[in-house]
Amino acid sequence: MNAPLSPAHLAPTIQTRDLPEALLDALKTRFGVRFSTALAVREQHGRDESAFTTVPPPAAVVFAESTQDVADTLTLANQYSVPVIPFGIGSSLEGHLLAVQGGISLDVGRMNAVLSINAEDLTVTVQPGVTRKQLNEAVKSTGLFFPIDPGADATLGGMTATRASGTNAVRYGTMRENVLALEVVTASGEVIRTGTRAKKSSAGYDLTRLMVGSEGTLGVITEVTVKLYPLPEAISAAICSFPSIEAAVRTTISIIQMGIPIARVELLDANTVRMVNTHSKLGLREEPLLLMEFHGSPTGVQEQALLVQDIAADNGVATDQGAFEWATTPEERTRLWTARHNAYFAAIQSKPGCRAISTDTCVPISRLADCLLDSVAEADATGIPYFLVGHVGDGNFHFGYLIDPNLPEERETAERLNHALVTRALSMEGTCSGEHGIGLHKMDFLVSEAGAGAVAMMRTIKQALDPKNILNPGKIFTL
Amino acid sequence: MNAPLSPAHLAPTIQTRDLPEALLDALKTRFGVRFSTALAVREQHGRDESAFTTVPPPAAVVFAESTQDVADTLTLANQYSVPVIPFGIGSSLEGHLLAVQGGISLDVGRMNAVLSINAEDLTVTVQPGVTRKQLNEAVKSTGLFFPIDPGADATLGGMTATRASGTNAVRYGTMRENVLALEVVTASGEVIRTGTRAKKSSAGYDLTRLMVGSEGTLGVITEVTVKLYPLPEAISAAICSFPSIEAAVRTTISIIQMGIPIARVELLDANTVRMVNTHSKLGLREEPLLLMEFHGSPTGVQEQALLVQDIAADNGVATDQGAFEWATTPEERTRLWTARHNAYFAAIQSKPGCRAISTDTCVPISRLADCLLDSVAEADATGIPYFLVGHVGDGNFHFGYLIDPNLPEERETAERLNHALVTRALSMEGTCSGEHGIGLHKMDFLVSEAGAGAVAMMRTIKQALDPKNILNPGKIFTL
Repeated sequence: MNAPLSPAHLAPTIQTRDLPEALLDALKTRFGVRFSTALAVREQHGRDESAFTTVPPPAAVVFAESTQDVADTLTLANQYSVPVIPFGIGSSLEGHLLAVQGGISLDVGRMNAVLSINAEDLTVTVQPGVTRKQLNEAVKSTGLFFPIDPGADATLGGMTATRASGTNAVRYGTMRENVLALEVVTASGEVIRTGTRAKKSSAGYDLTRLMVGSEGTLGVITEVTVKLYPLPEAISAAICSFPSIEAAVRTTISIIQMGIPIARVELLDANTVRMVNTHSKLGLREEPLLLMEFHGSPTGVQEQALLVQDIAADNGVATDQGAFEWATTPEERTRLWTARHNAYFAAIQSKPGCRAISTDTCVPISRLADCLLDSVAEADATGIPYFLVGHVGDGNFHFGYLIDPNLPEERETAERLNHALVTRALSMEGTCSGEHGIGLHKMDFLVSEAGAGAVAMMRTIKQALDPKNILNPGKIFTL
Repeated sequence: MNAPLSPAHLAPTIQTRDLPEALLDALKTRFGVRFSTALAVREQHGRDESAFTTVPPPAAVVFAESTQDVADTLTLANQYSVPVIPFGIGSSLEGHLLAVQGGISLDVGRMNAVLSINAEDLTVTVQPGVTRKQLNEAVKSTGLFFPIDPGADATLGGMTATRASGTNAVRYGTMRENVLALEVVTASGEVIRTGTRAKKSSAGYDLTRLMVGSEGTLGVITEVTVKLYPLPEAISAAICSFPSIEAAVRTTISIIQMGIPIARVELLDANTVRMVNTHSKLGLREEPLLLMEFHGSPTGVQEQALLVQDIAADNGVATDQGAFEWATTPEERTRLWTARHNAYFAAIQSKPGCRAISTDTCVPISRLADCLLDSVAEADATGIPYFLVGHVGDGNFHFGYLIDPNLPEERETAERLNHALVTRALSMEGTCSGEHGIGLHKMDFLVSEAGAGAVAMMRTIKQALDPKNILNPGKIFTL
C-alpha cells in the first residue's frame, strides 16, 4: 500500500500535436457537415467512463459512414502525422478515447449496419458502430444470439478493440474467442481483411487476434464477423445468498473445477447488495450473493442446478431452506439480473457526485479467494466506500472505489488500493486487466505484468505498422 | 483444374546461406556433443511429412536442453545472420522443417519436461518437446486431460507453432483457444513471456496468439501453458454408415447448426473404409461413415446420442436397424477409433511406394457439402487414388492424393486438384489451411486467401521482429 504511485496513474502526459490548417481544410472539403470543430462535439468525444477529467478534447471530429470515409481520414491524417482516435459509443473505462496527443476523433457510430446474418453458419458480420443489444435484436428471429455482455451497450468495434468479455464469458469466451474476421483500415489508409468465415484456420499470422485488444493503436476496425450461438432450449437463473464472500467464492471455484458448464456466475458483495436494495427496492438479503445462469437442455439445466446446490450446501448455504431463488421465464430472469445490471448506477448514487475508480484484475481460479479476501480487508481498512462485483467464474472481479473527484486524497487512496491489488494479482500469475484494457490508466501495470521485453515487442510491432504513431497514440505503452 | 501451377507448389526455391566457420566453432565449443554436422543427423532434421524431397539438409543440428541453450543458439545465429529452424518431432506436413536457406536445425525434442501441473486451475506448463500423449499420461492421475489430437503424436511446441487442432476441436477448440501463455526466445536471443495463467486478459497486444501459428518465423517457443479439461463423467462413441457422403455431411451440418455439443465427428469416405478394412481387418460396411463421440453427464450423453440418431434418420439412415454401432468402454472406443487412426497408414499401404499429397481446406459449415462433393467428383474424374477424411464438424477435411513420387504427372494432377479445391474453398469464404499451416506448400494460396495487403502486414511484422530473417526463413511468405 505504500509503494510510490507513478504520476501516470493520476494524470496522463499531454503532448498535443498541431493540426495543420491544410488538413482541417481537406477534411472539411471531404466530409462537409460530417466534420466538426464545435467545442460541444469535441468535448463529447474527448472523454470516456474513466476517472481522467483534465485532458483537452480532440481538435476535430469526423463522423464516418463507410470504410472509404475511414480510409480517407487515415490517408489524410497520415500525410500530416496527426493522431486519429476511433470512437464508438464512449463506454470504455481506461482513458482509451482521450486525446492526449490531440488530433481527430473518428466517430464510427453511424457505421451501424448489420451487413450479413449467416444463420446456417452461426456467424454475423456487422459494421463497428453496431451495439450488442442492436445485434441481438437483429438476429433474434434466427433463434441465435451473441453472448458477450460487458454490461454497457457497447459497440462491436469497441468491444473488439478492448478484447471485452463480461458475464457470459465463463461459458462462451471473450471477444478473443468469438471474433472470426475483421476488416481493418491501416495507418496508411489501406483496407485489409483478417481471417475468413471458416471456424478455424492455420493460414499465416493471426492478424485477427493481433487487432482484437489493440485499442485502436494498430488499425481502425470497419467490419467485424463474430460467432453466434443457438439460443439454449432451457435457461434457468438463480440467486443465492452466502454467509461470507469466501463461501461464495469457494462455491464458484468448485463449480469451475468440476467442469460444470455454467453460463454465468456473478458475485455481488454485501455493500453492493445494500446499494442495489436502496436504488431498486429489491429487498435482497444484505449478504454476499451469487447470480447464476444455466443454459442447456431441460434435463441438462436441472442436472447443473442440482450439482451447484450440493456445492453451495458444502459451503454453508442452507439450501434446504430456500436459499436459492429460481427464475425460468425471461421476465423473472430479468428481475433477478436487475441487481447486477444496476450495480454501477446504484453505487454511484449511493455517494452523490462521486466517481468510481474501477479495478479489473483476473487471477487463476485457485487463487481467487486469496486475492479477493486480502483486497477486501485492505479496502475495508481505509474506510473508503466501494462496491465489489465479479465475473468470478473467470477469476475476474471489479472493485469500484467511490471517490469525491474534488478530494485528491480519496483518488490517491483508491489508486493505492488498485496498485496493491494489481501487485497481488500479478504475484498470483494473474493479469492487471481481465477485460477493460490498458488505455492510459494501466500502462505501468502492463510493464510489471508482461515484462520490458514483451512490451518492447509490442512497441516494435506498433512502430512497424504505424511509423508516424497516428493511431490512438499514447495508449497501452509510451513510445 | 487448368490454372497454371506456380513452381512453388512443386519445388521450393533454395537459397542456401553460408554458415561461417567461426559460427561452427562457437556452436561446437558451446554445445560439444549436442552439436552435430553428421550427414545422417542433418538428413533426419531436413525433412518432414510433406511431399518435398529434394531440399538439401541443414548444415548443422543443435540439441537444446534448456531455454538458455535456445537463447545462446539464437544469439550466435543472429550475430552471423544464419537461419535457425526449430524442430520438435518432425511430423509437420507442409515443408516447415526444410532448410531452404540452409542454417541450423534447432532440435528441442529433449526439452520434454512437464514443468508444472496446476490441476486446481486446469492448466499445465510444459517444455516444447513434450508430446500430446506424454502430456496426457502426465496429467492422468488428476482426472484432467488435454483434448487436442492432431493424429500424430506431435510436440506441444510444434502444435503451437502450426496452430494445430484435430478430432476434438469441434468441442474444445484449437491451439488458438487453448494456449494461455508462452515463453519465447526472440531472434536476438532475448527470452520473453507472453500471457499469464489468468483465463482471460485485455492487457496489451495478444503476443500469445501472434506466436501461435507463426511456424517458427517469429520466435522459438521454449514453454507452453495450455488449458486442461475435466475428464467427462460419461463418454460414448458411435460409428454410423451412410448411403452417401452427402447424407453424412448433411447430418453433420444439422448437428452443428442445432448446437449439439458433440466432441468429435469424423468423416471417412468409402475409399478410406476399404483401405482400413484391408489394413486392419475391421469388416466395416464399405460406405461413407461418421465416427462420433459424445462427452458429458450420462444423461447428457444419452440426450445428444438420441438427437443425432434422429438427424441421421432424417438423412436416410436406417437407425432402427442397428446402423449405429455404440461403444462406451475405453477398449470398445479404441477399437472404433482404429479406423480413423489408421487411415493414413492404411492408405499409404494401399499403393506401395506412394506418398500422400494432403489438402487442408476448411469452409463455413453451410458450404461443406457443396465444397466436398464437387471436389470428390473432380478427383474421381482424374482416376487418381485418394483417401478422404474430415473433421467435418469444423468444416475441415483432407484429401490424401496417393502419388508415385517417380511419376511427375501424378504429382501435378494432385497439385492441380488441390489448387482447384483451395480456389473453391476460398470462393466459399473458407481457408486454404484449417490446421496444417502454410509452410512452403501453400504460400501462393495465402496471398489468394488473405490478400496482398494482409500478407504485407505479416511481412512487416516479420521484418520488424526478425530483421536479419534468421527464424525459419522462406516459410509462410517470401520476403
